[in-house]
Amino acid sequence: MMGGDHKHLTTLPAVANFLAYRQDAILILVGTPEISSQVQHAISDAYQERWHWVEATQEVHMEESPQAALKNKKDSSMRRAIEQVRDGHALAAVSAGNTGALMAVARFILKTLPGIDRPAIAKMMPTLQNHYCCVLDLGANVESTPEQLCQFAMMGSALYACVFQRERPRIGLLNVGTEPIKGTEISKKTHEQLSQLNTDGFHFIGNVEGNDLFSGKADVIVCDGFAGNIALKASEGAAKYIAHSLHATFKHNFFYQILGIFAYPVLRHFKKAVDPRKYNGASFLGLRGTVIKSHGSADSLAFFYALEQAYQEAIHQVIPYIEQKLHSTPLPPTVNSTASQVE
Amino acid sequence: MMGGDHKHLTTLPAVANFLAYRQDAILILVGTPEISSQVQHAISDAYQERWHWVEATQEVHMEESPQAALKNKKDSSMRRAIEQVRDGHALAAVSAGNTGALMAVARFILKTLPGIDRPAIAKMMPTLQNHYCCVLDLGANVESTPEQLCQFAMMGSALYACVFQRERPRIGLLNVGTEPIKGTEISKKTHEQLSQLNTDGFHFIGNVEGNDLFSGKADVIVCDGFAGNIALKASEGAAKYIAHSLHATFKHNFFYQILGIFAYPVLRHFKKAVDPRKYNGASFLGLRGTVIKSHGSADSLAFFYALEQAYQEAIHQVIPYIEQKLHSTPLPPTVNSTASQVE
Repeated sequence: MMGGDHKHLTTLPAVANFLAYRQDAILILVGTPEISSQVQHAISDAYQERWHWVEATQEVHMEESPQAALKNKKDSSMRRAIEQVRDGHALAAVSAGNTGALMAVARFILKTLPGIDRPAIAKMMPTLQNHYCCVLDLGANVESTPEQLCQFAMMGSALYACVFQRERPRIGLLNVGTEPIKGTEISKKTHEQLSQLNTDGFHFIGNVEGNDLFSGKADVIVCDGFAGNIALKASEGAAKYIAHSLHATFKHNFFYQILGIFAYPVLRHFKKAVDPRKYNGASFLGLRGTVIKSHGSADSLAFFYALEQAYQEAIHQVIPYIEQKLHSTPLPPTVNSTASQVE
Repeated sequence: MMGGDHKHLTTLPAVANFLAYRQDAILILVGTPEISSQVQHAISDAYQERWHWVEATQEVHMEESPQAALKNKKDSSMRRAIEQVRDGHALAAVSAGNTGALMAVARFILKTLPGIDRPAIAKMMPTLQNHYCCVLDLGANVESTPEQLCQFAMMGSALYACVFQRERPRIGLLNVGTEPIKGTEISKKTHEQLSQLNTDGFHFIGNVEGNDLFSGKADVIVCDGFAGNIALKASEGAAKYIAHSLHATFKHNFFYQILGIFAYPVLRHFKKAVDPRKYNGASFLGLRGTVIKSHGSADSLAFFYALEQAYQEAIHQVIPYIEQKLHSTPLPPTVNSTASQVE
């Protein structure tokens, strides 16, 4: 309840709406004592059977270092929430807090799955083909070895297959061209290793390019966290620029403003259709439990969608599915991991 | 005249329009004999003093390797055009042809500027602040050393200062966070070296993120060709997705279609305002001459803008300005260049 720029002012209304929306969901709300009475008042009595309160005495601040959060905040709301997953009380933890601290605490408490070196951050993006594309890693690691990128591919594919009930999702490797010889040494090696993994349950389609994040050519796109983070943020920047230009055009002169009144219902519909809040909620993949990260600046609608992402992963039993896939598909063994981690 | 998907069918109308638009421009048109009579007929007699025809017997195909183009196509239109620059007959060469071949031939014929290891591809992007942002490298090199990234920063800054008459353009380093400790080892080292270059003529503002390609926070953004290429293409993908969604919303139902008729003049204006063809024309920076690359799929309007980019760089004497800047600002010496080149 304590994460994000506006803490419970954001998370609380989202929780109240989510309880109404998903009648089979039970929420464990973790927060500091100061907000407990507000939580009590904000949630309808009708749902009192479907939520519990877990108290924590500390909270991790947005600018705190992962190391400090791990060492000094042993009773933080973030840590208590993740412990609920470890202890089997919750199927997923959701937080809008400090990304680096959340990743560090989640790794420490939950540990990585067998065969996985490092977790990755995955997100579903909308595409021109009316289906999602799962992109990972979006910034958990700045550099990754080919072996780690294969692990990401496997996990992304399992997540996609599980949530969308789609067999053999098409996996693409993000690169600067489609030919296998394109890119860095790591790109070329990863292409080679992914090609060798191609089996009944694994479908590598080769290199894809930046625009394929939205083209629908692949269901899963694998990249290192550096390229992924930059691609995601550049897309957000482009989207904002276009939205700004559209708005400015309708304000361009008085006549256009009048026409804007006519077009208003369509523009409202459009705004809703491309609302980035609907895609809030990134998955930390590779842990022995589901952890969903909401954007820190999320409002309550965006946080609602992060809860929904957690719900989807919980009901589709993503973690056991990934474990089974990791067990049945032999991944290339990790040589020596020199790749570094950011968050 | 021979480059791009539709060759002279695209370049010829662009040339005819450009001659009418820039009355002080003289164009040297390079092509194979088959098209010479078509060129003659397509250009108004009024401009006959302002264009010359240079014949080449070969053309470089889009799928040809740079090595093959260099070795086997010594009389290609591409090579002849670049030779016009080398020999002082032209102030710039423009081509919509094979990017890799164009870069290889340009490096071979023109050579790099003193102090520059490798050329970079630079492009002007529109921003929320109504000024451009020059982004480089966009794919000439897949990996770059900190020293090479400093060279790119210097050249991008000089190009920006020269074309927009702006002193001390703000230079940002593309990264996954704004703190100096973010990113890869190369990011951190580059941050350090760029900070040390900060002088009267050089203005490094620190790390920027993907969304800053469009935010206007920086005038010049430096990155390696891998991240730059992915950022650019992801932005194009996002823009296309949003345009598609807007179009689909106005077709959503009959009522919206009617409202779309009312909004038509505004939407047409908007489409023009964000038309990506206006930003066609990437600069190969770091050569002893101006070479502009048009998108291969450019239509004649887009190719017109590539000609305009060449015109701007020529009249603002970008090359002598970059040379002077390289001379007056001591760049960090290149240690050993292990970075590889793609195109």
